[in-house]
Amino acid sequence: MTKTTAGRFFEDYRIGQTITHAVPRTLTNGERAMYTSLYPTRFAIYSSDEFARSCGLMRAPLEDLAVFHTVFGKTVPDVSLNAVANLGYAEGLFTGRVFAGDTLTTTSEVIGLKENSNGKSGIVWVRSTGRNQHGREMLDYVRWVMVRKRDPNAAGPETVVPKLKEAVNPADLHLPQGLDFSDYNFALAGEPHRLADYQIGEKINHVDGITIEEAEHMMATRLWQNTAKVHFDATQREDGKRLIYGGHVMSLARALSFNGLANAQMIVAINAGAHANPCFAGDTVRAWSEVLDKTETGHPGVGAIRLRLVATKGDPAAFTLKGADGKYAPEVLLDLDYWALMPV
Amino acid sequence: MTKTTAGRFFEDYRIGQTITHAVPRTLTNGERAMYTSLYPTRFAIYSSDEFARSCGLMRAPLEDLAVFHTVFGKTVPDVSLNAVANLGYAEGLFTGRVFAGDTLTTTSEVIGLKENSNGKSGIVWVRSTGRNQHGREMLDYVRWVMVRKRDPNAAGPETVVPKLKEAVNPADLHLPQGLDFSDYNFALAGEPHRLADYQIGEKINHVDGITIEEAEHMMATRLWQNTAKVHFDATQREDGKRLIYGGHVMSLARALSFNGLANAQMIVAINAGAHANPCFAGDTVRAWSEVLDKTETGHPGVGAIRLRLVATKGDPAAFTLKGADGKYAPEVLLDLDYWALMPV
Amino acid sequence: MTKTTAGRFFEDYRIGQTITHAVPRTLTNGERAMYTSLYPTRFAIYSSDEFARSCGLMRAPLEDLAVFHTVFGKTVPDVSLNAVANLGYAEGLFTGRVFAGDTLTTTSEVIGLKENSNGKSGIVWVRSTGRNQHGREMLDYVRWVMVRKRDPNAAGPETVVPKLKEAVNPADLHLPQGLDFSDYNFALAGEPHRLADYQIGEKINHVDGITIEEAEHMMATRLWQNTAKVHFDATQREDGKRLIYGGHVMSLARALSFNGLANAQMIVAINAGAHANPCFAGDTVRAWSEVLDKTETGHPGVGAIRLRLVATKGDPAAFTLKGADGKYAPEVLLDLDYWALMPV
Repeated sequence: MTKTTAGRFFEDYRIGQTITHAVPRTLTNGERAMYTSLYPTRFAIYSSDEFARSCGLMRAPLEDLAVFHTVFGKTVPDVSLNAVANLGYAEGLFTGRVFAGDTLTTTSEVIGLKENSNGKSGIVWVRSTGRNQHGREMLDYVRWVMVRKRDPNAAGPETVVPKLKEAVNPADLHLPQGLDFSDYNFALAGEPHRLADYQIGEKINHVDGITIEEAEHMMATRLWQNTAKVHFDATQREDGKRLIYGGHVMSLARALSFNGLANAQMIVAINAGAHANPCFAGDTVRAWSEVLDKTETGHPGVGAIRLRLVATKGDPAAFTLKGADGKYAPEVLLDLDYWALMPV
Repeated sequence: MTKTTAGRFFEDYRIGQTITHAVPRTLTNGERAMYTSLYPTRFAIYSSDEFARSCGLMRAPLEDLAVFHTVFGKTVPDVSLNAVANLGYAEGLFTGRVFAGDTLTTTSEVIGLKENSNGKSGIVWVRSTGRNQHGREMLDYVRWVMVRKRDPNAAGPETVVPKLKEAVNPADLHLPQGLDFSDYNFALAGEPHRLADYQIGEKINHVDGITIEEAEHMMATRLWQNTAKVHFDATQREDGKRLIYGGHVMSLARALSFNGLANAQMIVAINAGAHANPCFAGDTVRAWSEVLDKTETGHPGVGAIRLRLVATKGDPAAFTLKGADGKYAPEVLLDLDYWALMPV
Repeated sequence: MTKTTAGRFFEDYRIGQTITHAVPRTLTNGERAMYTSLYPTRFAIYSSDEFARSCGLMRAPLEDLAVFHTVFGKTVPDVSLNAVANLGYAEGLFTGRVFAGDTLTTTSEVIGLKENSNGKSGIVWVRSTGRNQHGREMLDYVRWVMVRKRDPNAAGPETVVPKLKEAVNPADLHLPQGLDFSDYNFALAGEPHRLADYQIGEKINHVDGITIEEAEHMMATRLWQNTAKVHFDATQREDGKRLIYGGHVMSLARALSFNGLANAQMIVAINAGAHANPCFAGDTVRAWSEVLDKTETGHPGVGAIRLRLVATKGDPAAFTLKGADGKYAPEVLLDLDYWALMPV
């Protein structure tokens, strides 16, 4: 009789199950402008149609993380409505570029299940895929979440833990067709540093900070049609605060990383990601990065740089990540491992 | 000599008077994106050009309530600048669909006048019509407001109270040309419930809540170029709060109603509406609906459902509307009666 | 080794030096919608493609101040990162109109340098020019800022103080090709007042007030990719407030001036401007204007009006500007002198 749904519980998932997530979404220049208004982003290839053309693209695509948030948002009602925790990401591949006017649809396949020993919850691994209106894959990634059981006495499923790559192999990266950094304009891009200037192990303090307001993160999270009520409903917590969508911190940190990484133009893979601590309105977010790896690609003048991006409420000049106990320091909000494209 | 206007008072209105409201407005994909950022809306026909095409439309139109707010906003400087209260709506008909790039202009005709017995104010009924750049009617509705008199001693006009329909007759609904729900994709739309699954008298708790911030409702109200100063100026009230535009609550409640009414795709008529109590920043808005009527239409697979949508600061599971005295309960914010289109 | 930059200091500027500012920006209908959401603007020529066409334009351009903010925002990392104060504007000329889809790039030339007597800072004058994707000039203006020295003991440069016009000569204004107000529709524009109705020396109280929220001014300032940290980082000041970008107050005041100046359609020149006092969230901004001059132009039906626009936290009916000491009154936020186009 009831028309609303309470969402899926742990025992509702089966290995191999495919879920078509509801409500396809057409992204336009409106979403592009909103993204710029919400995050201090300045990467030239997304900011300017002309700069994008000078790199061999037909015009500026939507920011890769805008695509990520849209695809992710679709999965929320089916995957994370009863989630206790968002545990991690792996094997994220941006396989195509999304332009204003394109429509995204998301599907997910259940690839792993493991009941917790307390019998009250379990871990679900899903591989989610965003496709455009032509059915072409735009983004593919694995996420795992801890989900409550409806009935603690229900028998658990057979444990299947997927083998996930520690990082996307550079050979598997999907670069945009025609991408060419031979005539890359460093002055217009904002910094002179090319791939050769970065050393593996080098750490960069991105300096600037942004203090978050409730209105901002709610507008952002709604923009991606993410419906998780903890982000919007002040009555869900005793302190009246709303938990900020982890992706909001991702986009803030990525935008802040322009200062020192202005030429890390496009995110082409997400190797791993952890939302280390919750973020709330009033927090001032800062960021630092560490160069993990770098490589050439087959495209003229285009290299790839593997970066660890850390968002923190603390001093980014301290480059703090984990304590002696191996746990994230309390001021760390996000630990993201990704591949971006950069002129060699 | 003064260049600014104090707005119209009760004695400035005449039966039959037609007012051309200022400042036509071109709506674009920018306004579409802003709408999604301000309200947690997910109705597929507005979210996706592709879904709209699968229903026989050329692409996704602007949300019907975005059109309502734009047309309404235009009337504010001429109708409600000196209004004491916005009393009601009737005979609201969405007669055409508005797409990105269309320009709306609004005119109003005074169709009723009734002085209050205290001689200090009176009720004005106007029929407002929004037209696109081709002069085609897009929206037509009646609204009545209580307006102050400039001079309490001025003679009142002859009383004319217009006869208004209790609800729009389903035969009078204007469906989009070519609309066809024969191949309606329930999985992509988000819920399996079709018109046949809803019973007259059935009530639906939409569960989720949204806590409102000042920045959000001001950005929304400005977006529709609504200039009523109570929404923007914290010095207008002793408590420093800004009164939230009633239409903001309408759009919030309609968006929340997705959870249980995902297939109530398009609002085609507003039968009645009352802003039961004022809403302020910090309020958490929830919603419930009641099925009032349902009917078929001449379009393939398309039915119409008549719904009462109630926005409340209280528990939507209680389905509270009015007290024993016939007055709205203090937690009720909005009581809206409308027709929407739904697959049969 | 460090990849981030601390910005330019006083001794880094040379007379004649040309700076190409980073990150070109494509403006779209998304930015147009955001502008309307942030400011209560209703000038018909920007609000409606149809109205713009009736005035001889091909469609509605972006608001002139949106162009100003975009061009200005680009200069921040190179000009005002170490600025102590933004001292003034002069010779601002809107030389072309920007439409959705156009891409703006900014360059600046250093035209003046003067070390302060304390040796700790100096004044830098730059002429900044915004060009579209065809290299056509869209906006040109002079700004001067006080900039810290890196080394107080460094020798100062030879003093060069540019001669700046007190106001742009009406003969130098660049009107849009084809602009024609012969069939200007005053009813749709919102007010009946034409150039002939305004008297030099006349003052207009724009009445309405807007109370600013942190989220709003931060979204606005990010929209123009202005990166000055004082606008975003609550830890920069002891009171946790963020200093509001002066241009935000400009756009608020200009939008408020619609009430009394609805037909001052396009800003074509900025003669002078001063941010008289800082503005913070919670302030309620009001505005008044004074008619400084008026003139005909060569275009049919098009005149130009020179206005002083004052934003204030006080009572705009008092028309307060400066005290007996010649200094701005503490409630005054902005004093802007500009030319706008108006039907004669």
